[in-house]
Amino acid sequence: MEQLEGRNPVLECLARGRRRVHRIWLDEGARPDDKITRILELAERAGVILARVPRARLDKMADGRVHNGIVAHADPVPSPTARQLLDTLFDAGRAPFLLLADEVSYEHNLGAILRTSLGFGVDGLVIPTRRGAEVGPVVQRVSMGAVEVVPVVREGLSSALKPIRDAGIPVVGADMGGTPLHASRLSGPLALVLGGEGKGLSPALRRKCDAVVSVPLAGKLESLNVSVAAGILMYEKRRQDGWFDTTP
Amino acid sequence: MEQLEGRNPVLECLARGRRRVHRIWLDEGARPDDKITRILELAERAGVILARVPRARLDKMADGRVHNGIVAHADPVPSPTARQLLDTLFDAGRAPFLLLADEVSYEHNLGAILRTSLGFGVDGLVIPTRRGAEVGPVVQRVSMGAVEVVPVVREGLSSALKPIRDAGIPVVGADMGGTPLHASRLSGPLALVLGGEGKGLSPALRRKCDAVVSVPLAGKLESLNVSVAAGILMYEKRRQDGWFDTTP
Repeated sequence: MEQLEGRNPVLECLARGRRRVHRIWLDEGARPDDKITRILELAERAGVILARVPRARLDKMADGRVHNGIVAHADPVPSPTARQLLDTLFDAGRAPFLLLADEVSYEHNLGAILRTSLGFGVDGLVIPTRRGAEVGPVVQRVSMGAVEVVPVVREGLSSALKPIRDAGIPVVGADMGGTPLHASRLSGPLALVLGGEGKGLSPALRRKCDAVVSVPLAGKLESLNVSVAAGILMYEKRRQDGWFDTTP
Repeated sequence: MEQLEGRNPVLECLARGRRRVHRIWLDEGARPDDKITRILELAERAGVILARVPRARLDKMADGRVHNGIVAHADPVPSPTARQLLDTLFDAGRAPFLLLADEVSYEHNLGAILRTSLGFGVDGLVIPTRRGAEVGPVVQRVSMGAVEVVPVVREGLSSALKPIRDAGIPVVGADMGGTPLHASRLSGPLALVLGGEGKGLSPALRRKCDAVVSVPLAGKLESLNVSVAAGILMYEKRRQDGWFDTTP
C-alpha cells in the first residue's frame, strides 16, 4: 500500500485510473473547492472508502509533509523490469526513449525529472534499487501526476542496460567533457544515462555508453542542476526527432 | 551586510572578488580540506578577520540552515537598476540577454535559474522588489556561485521593461499557448519574461511582450517546473545564437 498526500497527487491518481485507491481521509473542515469536488466524484465512482477526520490526524499521517487536507492509500504504482518495459514498448510499436538516472539524491530533482519526462513523452525512467531518492509522497507531489503515467523501473542501471543494449537501442551518457548536445545524434530510439547531483556519471556506467554528450556551458560554470540538464537533453532529443513539428 | 553560509558560497564570493568579505567564522573542529584551505588562503590575502568558534555558534548564526562549518559576512552583491545594467552592457558592446522572473516563490527554483543563467551567459536577472523569493543564503548555495557573477536587478518588472523596450530589445514572454519555442526567433538581444510557479505570466506582463513562446509538451502535462522551463528557453536561445559552435 502506498500513501498519497495532497489534493493534486490524489486527484491525479484517481483521474489517471492506473491503480486502485482504497481509502481517502479528508480534513473535516476542508472547504469543497473544485479539486476536492472532483476528487469526491471520482472516489465515489470508484467505490473508495471516505473518512472525514480532524486535520490533526492528517498532520500525523503525513508526518509533517504538505497534505492540503487530504491523504489516501492506494496500490503501489506498477514497477516493471527493464526487460518487461521494453517488451511492452516494442509490442506497442514504439521507438523507446528511456531515461536512466543514477543516484539522484534530492526528491525535488527526481520529481522534476519525472514531470519533464511526462511532458516530453519519455517511455520509462530507470532508477537504482537502493541508492538515490525514493518515489515517495514528495516526488509524487513535485512530479505533478507524472508518477501515475511514466513507468518507473527499479533496477541496477548496469543490469537494466543489458536488455536495452541487446535490443540495439543506442545508450548515450550525459556528462562533462562529452560531445556538445546539438552536434550529437539523439533522434530515434534512445537510452539517456544521467549521473546524480555533484558526482556525474560513474566510470563503470560511462564505459557502457556508446557516446557521451554535454550541454555546452560558458566557462564560469561546471555543471547544471541535474533536473535542468535532464530537461535540456529531453528537449534537444525531441527537437531532433521533429516531434514538435507534429505535436499541436 | 549579507550573511554567507557554507563552504561553496564563501569560497565563490572570495574567488570571484566582486565584493568585500569582512569576517569569517569557522568551526574550530573543522578538518582543513581543500576548500577550507583555499578559503583560508584567499581570506588572508584579502585581509578578512577570521574567528574559530564552536559549531553551536554557527548553528545559531545559520538559523538551522546548512553551513558546513563556515559563516561569513560580506558587503551585499551590487544591485543595479535595469537602466544602469543596460548602460553597462551597451558600454561593453554586448547584445544584452536578460531574464525577468515574476514571483518565483521557491528559493531552489530561483537558485537553479541563477545557476543556469551563469552557464548560458545571461547578462542579468530582474526580479520584483517585494514578491517572490529573496536572494538569501539558500539561493546563494543553490546557485553554485552564480549570485556572485550574474547581476540581479530588484525592480518592478513593468518598470524594468521600460528602458529595455526603449533600447529596442525584443521582449518575449514564456507561457502556455504561445508560439512553439523552436519556431520562434530568439537570437540576438533578448529580454525573456518568465511567470512564477503555477500562475504563469500575468495578463499585464503578457501585454508588454512582443511575442509569447511555449515549450511544446505532450498533451498529458500542462507545464514544466519553472527552472526547467527557464533552462530549456536559455538553451534554445543560445542554440539559435550559434553560441555553442564557438564556445569550446
